[in-house]
Amino acid sequence: MSKQFTLKTPKGTKDWDGKDMVIRQRLFDTITSVFKRHGGVTIDTPVFELREILAGKYGEDSKLIYNLEDQGGEITSLRYDLTVPFARYVAMNNVQQIKRYHIAKVYRRDQPAMTKGRMREFYQCDFDIAGQFDAMIPDAECLSIVVEVLTRLQIPGFTIKLNHRKILDGIFTFCGVPEDKVRTISSAVDKLDKLPWLDVRKEMTEDKGLDGDIADKIGEYVQLKGTVAEMIAKLENDKLMENETAKQGLEDMKTLLPYLEAYNISSSISFDLSLARGLDYYTGLIYEVVTAQSAPPAEGEKKKKKSKSNDDDNSDNVGVGSIAAGGRYDKLVGMFSTKKKGEIPCVGISFGVERLFSIIKSSKIFDDLRPTATQVFVMAFGGGPEWKGFLAERMHVTKMLWDAGIEAEFMYKQKPKPQKQFEAAERSGCPLSVILGQEEYAKGEVKVKVLGQGDQADQGVDVKLEDLTSYVKKTLSTLNVESLNLN
Amino acid sequence: MSKQFTLKTPKGTKDWDGKDMVIRQRLFDTITSVFKRHGGVTIDTPVFELREILAGKYGEDSKLIYNLEDQGGEITSLRYDLTVPFARYVAMNNVQQIKRYHIAKVYRRDQPAMTKGRMREFYQCDFDIAGQFDAMIPDAECLSIVVEVLTRLQIPGFTIKLNHRKILDGIFTFCGVPEDKVRTISSAVDKLDKLPWLDVRKEMTEDKGLDGDIADKIGEYVQLKGTVAEMIAKLENDKLMENETAKQGLEDMKTLLPYLEAYNISSSISFDLSLARGLDYYTGLIYEVVTAQSAPPAEGEKKKKKSKSNDDDNSDNVGVGSIAAGGRYDKLVGMFSTKKKGEIPCVGISFGVERLFSIIKSSKIFDDLRPTATQVFVMAFGGGPEWKGFLAERMHVTKMLWDAGIEAEFMYKQKPKPQKQFEAAERSGCPLSVILGQEEYAKGEVKVKVLGQGDQADQGVDVKLEDLTSYVKKTLSTLNVESLNLN
Repeated sequence: MSKQFTLKTPKGTKDWDGKDMVIRQRLFDTITSVFKRHGGVTIDTPVFELREILAGKYGEDSKLIYNLEDQGGEITSLRYDLTVPFARYVAMNNVQQIKRYHIAKVYRRDQPAMTKGRMREFYQCDFDIAGQFDAMIPDAECLSIVVEVLTRLQIPGFTIKLNHRKILDGIFTFCGVPEDKVRTISSAVDKLDKLPWLDVRKEMTEDKGLDGDIADKIGEYVQLKGTVAEMIAKLENDKLMENETAKQGLEDMKTLLPYLEAYNISSSISFDLSLARGLDYYTGLIYEVVTAQSAPPAEGEKKKKKSKSNDDDNSDNVGVGSIAAGGRYDKLVGMFSTKKKGEIPCVGISFGVERLFSIIKSSKIFDDLRPTATQVFVMAFGGGPEWKGFLAERMHVTKMLWDAGIEAEFMYKQKPKPQKQFEAAERSGCPLSVILGQEEYAKGEVKVKVLGQGDQADQGVDVKLEDLTSYVKKTLSTLNVESLNLN
Repeated sequence: MSKQFTLKTPKGTKDWDGKDMVIRQRLFDTITSVFKRHGGVTIDTPVFELREILAGKYGEDSKLIYNLEDQGGEITSLRYDLTVPFARYVAMNNVQQIKRYHIAKVYRRDQPAMTKGRMREFYQCDFDIAGQFDAMIPDAECLSIVVEVLTRLQIPGFTIKLNHRKILDGIFTFCGVPEDKVRTISSAVDKLDKLPWLDVRKEMTEDKGLDGDIADKIGEYVQLKGTVAEMIAKLENDKLMENETAKQGLEDMKTLLPYLEAYNISSSISFDLSLARGLDYYTGLIYEVVTAQSAPPAEGEKKKKKSKSNDDDNSDNVGVGSIAAGGRYDKLVGMFSTKKKGEIPCVGISFGVERLFSIIKSSKIFDDLRPTATQVFVMAFGGGPEWKGFLAERMHVTKMLWDAGIEAEFMYKQKPKPQKQFEAAERSGCPLSVILGQEEYAKGEVKVKVLGQGDQADQGVDVKLEDLTSYVKKTLSTLNVESLNLN
């Protein structure tokens, strides 16, 4: 019967189980409750889309898209993110305004680095606001959502790096970057979080053929960062403002500033001109959230690693990267629309679950969680050769508990030994046992006993069968046991 | 900018949104809470598996598997169900015992029939018990879970059709079906829920070349059904019991009977010898749950439809089919194991979400649900040319509510008109408004007003800003508003 199989999950994917699932569910619940607090509705789009929907949206990263085989029907691909399917949904249904959240898996044929939480199949938790609104109001709300989610998740020391595509584009034009080099120079700038300026400059001039003077001029701007108020003061009177695009970007930042203060989130934000973000579709504000764990290793550490093959990217001392990111994309919905008024401005934020999970798990705040929700273990003790094990009786009592909404288990054995039943109860980690004794059960009584008391072992309380469920509920509430029934 | 796109989701898939998402989430929550009550832990496996894992598990249905393109890596396919990935997980991790549940999407390139809830991408909610246990105890628990879930979902008039693969195989052998015809004859028998016996007999004899006498002998058995107790009594002394396999199956049913009575679920079960189930991997008990809505149309109705093309299978008067199904599969884990002791017996139940959803939605019990959870709409009224619209103030007050865990919204406009704000509040369906008036706000006060009171319009109560969140919480609790925050 047995065959020689490669028993594994596909590269870059994994099974989630045990305590990890419980922690991750907590993560989803926390994020969902913040999204709902902001009036979000949720949608669920298919895991694959027509391939033409995804085409031309991801720049160089398009090569990472998973394609489905042509099996004589439509040509489809797995979704790469939740943003493009959202834009397709908005255009297709002619939605004029929506705040939607979506928590689901996305797929990228990237080089996996499992310990850092970089997977080929991974969850994103997205919140997006679509519609024509007064400037920067939805943008500020997305930034507030970042702070609210990460505060509730107790993520230590996070920073929102903020920039504006128009300011960045303005810098490139103003410094004299040729039109056809803007994207590639932009992607070089984006590496400033991992590389020193001189390395980035070298990439610009040697690899990408940019004039050294232009690079130096860019360098003066993209190394600037500070609070939003500081940066506005710095840029306001800079000659960069001769550039109309940059000026528009700065106006947005000025509009944004009082909103950040109203939400009391300014201190979490760093206006950082080096932030560029790879995706093609951003048109305004862009942001990326980092923590101490996001950072790459110190220079010395990195050099040591450099000789290692690219495939072996599982080293622990590489940062997990950004834990959330997003921005404004005003043209994406319009790309799906043939209508004149088809353009619906959008702004959104996406949380990376696997990375947040890595941080939360290492913080050990969830160490007390159990994977099951079991509260009661139902046992039977008896003796003598006639004793049949009380299986039907255990089933009957367990069913009473289930019907009352109480999580309960018993041993799947006709005649289990007392010791085996206690061991099974202990493994489940449940706090209470209900014990069916031969004589007591005949009188319509069972014993309820608190488990895990060690030497001060509870001797148990005799309870009438008809009072059992209410007695168990009362006892569980006084025990103050954390119910893992997350609903 | 705009292009000519086919704006649609792939065939057999759809976007879920609005109220439907809220109803479906309720469905998941109810099912999950029952699964947890039975001590289930959850796992999450990748949406695609190595193709060789899925090979040889689904019989003729294998042609419905979605393959991913070979992009120079591994050969993979989308999962067809959650059972085979579960068995792969059990074998790969050498799990000896587990009760696991898994709620996730599966993929089948079937002929879609959207109105009946037959999709190419659809959710399954599975509960499975793996491990070596005393006979029929986990099987009985799976049947109890069916009753508990459907009772909590208020599904009217459901029946669990129950059969045993060994009895069915015994019937075929006993009646003289040649070994190589057993599977095809079995699949003909399975059609007895849709076709009269004479049509099935015709298929056996004319299409599949079975001897007419053998078909008639089969017909005597497979048209039998009744309660488990009745059927045991009927079969016990039948000459079919000369067949050892059938006898083993009946022994199982005898063991099962008192467990069904202990769980008080016998009345929901019909022991039906015509139930065969298509999948290859079942080895023992098999079951399928039907309701009034599962049934196909009456004969006359069906005939009228017959001339229509197979592609247009969206007619409303076709039954949704079974709403849950499952059985015992003792050999599946062993197929993934090279170890001698690699065989782990399993039994499970799978609920079809889309079909349950169709029934629940048509029952209209969730008609009062709102898609958002918004409880408070924050507005500002003012006048005079100097009035700036109190945007930052509205943001500040809304943020206070968010931080207190209260779902709140405001209008994304610098200077919104009062009327527009009330309309937006009404659209959101939220029960309370907080109104910022120019003079009151200067004194540190806002007005809290109950919405949707019609003629008996609440005049509102002045509340100090520092008391706002506690006042709002208190008011919401007295309003007894159903919070849709499903966590």
